[in-house]
Amino acid sequence: MNYKTPFNKPHLTGSELDYISDAVTSGKISGNGKYTVMCQELMQKKYGFGKCLLTTSCTDALEMAAILIDVKPGDEIIMPSYTFVSTANAFVLRGAKIVFVDSRKDRPGMDEDLIQQLITKKTKAIVPVHYAGVSCDMDKIMEVADAHNVFVIEDAAQAIDSYYTDKYGNKKALGSIGHMATFSFHETKNIISGEGGMLVINDSQFKERAEIIWEKGTNRSSFFRGEVDKYGWVDIGSSFLPSDIIAAFLYAQLESIEKIQNRRIEIWKSYSINLREWASKNRIALPIVPEFATNNAHMFYLVFNNIEERTTVINALKKEGILSVFHYLSLHKSPFYELKHDGRELPMSDHYTNCLLRLPMFYNLSDNEIQLIIKTITKSI
Amino acid sequence: MNYKTPFNKPHLTGSELDYISDAVTSGKISGNGKYTVMCQELMQKKYGFGKCLLTTSCTDALEMAAILIDVKPGDEIIMPSYTFVSTANAFVLRGAKIVFVDSRKDRPGMDEDLIQQLITKKTKAIVPVHYAGVSCDMDKIMEVADAHNVFVIEDAAQAIDSYYTDKYGNKKALGSIGHMATFSFHETKNIISGEGGMLVINDSQFKERAEIIWEKGTNRSSFFRGEVDKYGWVDIGSSFLPSDIIAAFLYAQLESIEKIQNRRIEIWKSYSINLREWASKNRIALPIVPEFATNNAHMFYLVFNNIEERTTVINALKKEGILSVFHYLSLHKSPFYELKHDGRELPMSDHYTNCLLRLPMFYNLSDNEIQLIIKTITKSI
Repeated sequence: MNYKTPFNKPHLTGSELDYISDAVTSGKISGNGKYTVMCQELMQKKYGFGKCLLTTSCTDALEMAAILIDVKPGDEIIMPSYTFVSTANAFVLRGAKIVFVDSRKDRPGMDEDLIQQLITKKTKAIVPVHYAGVSCDMDKIMEVADAHNVFVIEDAAQAIDSYYTDKYGNKKALGSIGHMATFSFHETKNIISGEGGMLVINDSQFKERAEIIWEKGTNRSSFFRGEVDKYGWVDIGSSFLPSDIIAAFLYAQLESIEKIQNRRIEIWKSYSINLREWASKNRIALPIVPEFATNNAHMFYLVFNNIEERTTVINALKKEGILSVFHYLSLHKSPFYELKHDGRELPMSDHYTNCLLRLPMFYNLSDNEIQLIIKTITKSI
Repeated sequence: MNYKTPFNKPHLTGSELDYISDAVTSGKISGNGKYTVMCQELMQKKYGFGKCLLTTSCTDALEMAAILIDVKPGDEIIMPSYTFVSTANAFVLRGAKIVFVDSRKDRPGMDEDLIQQLITKKTKAIVPVHYAGVSCDMDKIMEVADAHNVFVIEDAAQAIDSYYTDKYGNKKALGSIGHMATFSFHETKNIISGEGGMLVINDSQFKERAEIIWEKGTNRSSFFRGEVDKYGWVDIGSSFLPSDIIAAFLYAQLESIEKIQNRRIEIWKSYSINLREWASKNRIALPIVPEFATNNAHMFYLVFNNIEERTTVINALKKEGILSVFHYLSLHKSPFYELKHDGRELPMSDHYTNCLLRLPMFYNLSDNEIQLIIKTITKSI
């Protein structure tokens, strides 16, 4: 079926094709070219990130992080069950056992108070996912991690341009807090390059090796800086670098980030204001942004009381040619991990699996479309 | 230093930016979009390949192959030492032990007659590399593989549009012969997308799982074909799919493949004809294309008698602003693998490491530049 209003629609900010053409003309469109460096430097400066390395996907950035913290078979990684498969698969590929945490009652992010009791001697890392770009309580998570000497890798796939204010009142960009962090520029994100991602390395012990892992296990970057006189095979690694065509596209998007974010926040507020009364009356939950967090308007979602309500609204929207989607089947109940999971019930994760619905959210969504979506939803229940 | 004549220069065939723009307008620029399917179908049809799946790099295609044949710690993989690190790293990431084969005396491809004696009960696969796009003797390799029930994965990174004629006289595209094959569309290849690659699956037992591994370990492809009613986590996997931006770029290149190949073959022949006499006089080896193989003009190289001769020529070319490059340090002598290698000497691999030199080879290389390169080389020794 073809929807009049899709769930997502990528858009050009205007400079993408010019920059791609420039990259080709400059004679280098493989990885680690001019635009790759420009993107990395822009984000390091703007968000106070440690070393940034563009990757072909957030999945690949997570895999790099797993290699860098040297995950070995049997190591345990703590993460939410209500997340994308890649959060887990990146560590499973290195032999890790995943220890899933339930989501919070008030929002889908993982319940920070449940982490402490899951730590064992085998715990290697905690991977908080900033669901919908809304920060987890990073003070709590960093304290548990520090106390037990485990790493924190922020899965910031959805969290570009979003912030956390710590207990001392310091406002920090998401992705700048953990030992490492990963971002996605998949077409469904705020800032896009079709497929694409980035690894942020805040803990400097990983910086040198990260470049090697990124460059297929070679010391090529070191060679081009004149630090070694030839380059060769020095480590495991993969081809994590995206083409500079992708970086050129991404750079155009990053230049327009304020414009994009302003429009997304307008859309988000429009949903929020106009659905508030209806939601309250029907005990349907809308996104909550805690005081320590900012809202990057990555996603607007509804949490229904049951799956039937959700299906009713999906179908009502569908009738009007509008596509709304749900996502994330609890990973602890997936065909792949159900028998490997330790058997704990994670009821909130299952609740969001059954009851959460995402509304269309993209730069070119028109005010008329938003009004129709709101009207259709509020009439349907 | 800035070279007047670089070693490589990517070029636009003319439709790349139009197709990228079209991909964005069509509303999907993530992986497995319109242009991805078009590229895959074009190559399946043109070259008689089994199922084709675009990847973000040839490295990633090799990693997919390693996952698909279920490489486990201790499994042995036979491959040349004179190859790019990724040929090996893709299998090392899954715990394999690499058993290196020496190169042939007459060309850098691996010596097919040395494979049989390296087979053990732990051998899982043979990975022939079609160096410079020139086929290995695939009849010999497939016979050894069949006799011992091991897989053959063709590393066809450099081998697009190149062929092998088997003992029955059947002409087969490289990449269509082994159980699987991998291609590269890195900017230094004949057909490019900056970074990019492809996995070819000829053995149908791997087709279904390949799609799952490709889609992050989910049965998403199956879901969109209506074969399952929801999709979830069913296997290990990664995000091997390139953005459709990359596929759109690649499709434009593939449409111009004949034009590109014709010019490259002209350049190759010009080098070959004009250097023949000088090479013969100085006992310098030029590329040899055996009778069973075709020449896709991926590379033109010289093999000198010693490293000093090579350095002399590199420097003479450099003085004229021309960049020539060598590559591949024998992997069995790399910092990463030297102590893991079984100690066998591989003298031909070391010979090519020290004595092989690649000349500039790209579509827009002018006849004047070629003449200057030839003149400079023949005068320098």
